[in-house]
Amino acid sequence: MLVERISDRLAKRWQAETSLLGEMCVHALVPSGKLFRPILLLESALAVGGDAEVVLPAAIGAECGHVASLVHDDIIDNDDLRRGRPSVQYKFGADNAIVTGDALIFDLFAGLAECRGTGARADRIVAALDVVARCGIDLCRGQSLEAELCERMDFDLGTYLTVVRLKTATLFKSACECGALLAGGDETMVRTLGAYAENLGCAFQIHDDVMSYTRKTGVMGKPDTSDIRNGRVTLPVILAYQTGTPDDRADITEMLVGDGDPAIRRDMLVTILDRTGALAAASGLAREYSENAIATVNGLPVTASRGRLCGFAQAAIDRDR
Amino acid sequence: MLVERISDRLAKRWQAETSLLGEMCVHALVPSGKLFRPILLLESALAVGGDAEVVLPAAIGAECGHVASLVHDDIIDNDDLRRGRPSVQYKFGADNAIVTGDALIFDLFAGLAECRGTGARADRIVAALDVVARCGIDLCRGQSLEAELCERMDFDLGTYLTVVRLKTATLFKSACECGALLAGGDETMVRTLGAYAENLGCAFQIHDDVMSYTRKTGVMGKPDTSDIRNGRVTLPVILAYQTGTPDDRADITEMLVGDGDPAIRRDMLVTILDRTGALAAASGLAREYSENAIATVNGLPVTASRGRLCGFAQAAIDRDR
Repeated sequence: MLVERISDRLAKRWQAETSLLGEMCVHALVPSGKLFRPILLLESALAVGGDAEVVLPAAIGAECGHVASLVHDDIIDNDDLRRGRPSVQYKFGADNAIVTGDALIFDLFAGLAECRGTGARADRIVAALDVVARCGIDLCRGQSLEAELCERMDFDLGTYLTVVRLKTATLFKSACECGALLAGGDETMVRTLGAYAENLGCAFQIHDDVMSYTRKTGVMGKPDTSDIRNGRVTLPVILAYQTGTPDDRADITEMLVGDGDPAIRRDMLVTILDRTGALAAASGLAREYSENAIATVNGLPVTASRGRLCGFAQAAIDRDR
Repeated sequence: MLVERISDRLAKRWQAETSLLGEMCVHALVPSGKLFRPILLLESALAVGGDAEVVLPAAIGAECGHVASLVHDDIIDNDDLRRGRPSVQYKFGADNAIVTGDALIFDLFAGLAECRGTGARADRIVAALDVVARCGIDLCRGQSLEAELCERMDFDLGTYLTVVRLKTATLFKSACECGALLAGGDETMVRTLGAYAENLGCAFQIHDDVMSYTRKTGVMGKPDTSDIRNGRVTLPVILAYQTGTPDDRADITEMLVGDGDPAIRRDMLVTILDRTGALAAASGLAREYSENAIATVNGLPVTASRGRLCGFAQAAIDRDR
């Protein structure tokens, strides 16, 4: 029911604006994805004993901020499809997509300010503002570091994990801490939910990076070649590089930087990732993060929300999409 | 002295970060420009009887937000020079420039949150957050509308003024209202400073659009051809189109959409803008906005800051850079 309310509010948010910008924002936001970040924000508010109504505008904002990062990512990765429809950059061009992403970042903060009207305390909104702004900067750090990493073909596990933490886990952390802060959670609760979210985000991203090679076919029946086309150095690739033979290493680099058909390169890479056990090892690490997330959140008082947060940590590594 | 403090703080803000993102943010921010927006924010705080120290982080943030818009604009306009040095998109590539601009938008809001530590009241920060977020969205509306306008070659004065208000005046308004709100100004003062800033912004942008054709040479001794290259429909062009002969109209469109040498097209256009009196008429409108700004701000109590705000309104139309 919460999901429907969020998706309904998201659909209405830019609907009345008849401008091109309005059209682009609606295209980016509707139909919505899994709404994972706003749901995390709301459940975190409930888990500390707060009221979902109070934090709802911030939850809407969290999705706007997430979609902003997708819109800008699709320009950088030159991806034409997003959520089964043309990406903003494909449909409206890169210039328009830059402006659309910017507007949605501002809308993230507009949503936060709206929580004054739904009853959040001003000092709590300011604390949430601080978290959301800093997490946004971390997200940019992650995107920039990832670009450097791929440029250098740096097969270093530590750097990869830093990118995952900055690029994915930070927005999960932002959502959970923001929800807990706005709902009046105490410092320990806020910190617990932040730690939960970091582990959850790492599990989620690593599982994503594994699925990029294990999914049979991507959207529209085409194999998912985005990681190959962008020469992305992800965990399965790093683990295969570390455990593989010198020949494997040469092949891995060749598959990532080569310019042959991406679908064929992907198939050849999958063979190496499979044979070296890298895919299984990466899945194992995702599972560890998921278990850590569950152990962490179990430090909170028992509530239905705590149970659902545990469920999300499980679902993060059980998804096949 | 305020200027030095702002530029010193700006220089230090990203200096400690050794990452590529840090390097790019420093490149974008330092050396700083005229720091017009942070100065407006500080003077507005002083004009309502507030303390500059309290609002200083927000002033730094205002410059970050402005520079973010320049970094993204330079991608959209494919401009290689900014403030006499290579633009971020030219030096680091468009993808990196997208991420740099995003980080600086988030830093705008981080600055706002920091005002809690310098003594601003939480409810004032939330009110400022609301203004800054909404003005940011207006800025995006302006950028998107301008792109549509140029695409359509729409020589409509009303639409142009809407773009100017949304794209330029809104960030001035954001700075002045934010300063006044954080410093504890009452509703009338905040509204007065907002109206002042809107008029100031319009004067500033119209003068800019005139200078684009009257400046003898741009940065590095090259004529300023950005408006021509981007086929930008600005006030001088609109006025010349409205008062010119059918032949003038055909020539104006030709100069803006043609693909000949931009410097030659610019010279031919200047001849028409001059002969039709469009440049003089546009300057006259800039002057009107400047006078309105001064009349508006004179509604505030007499302070040194009020005097300086009047001076800015004068300077906005007297600049030759």
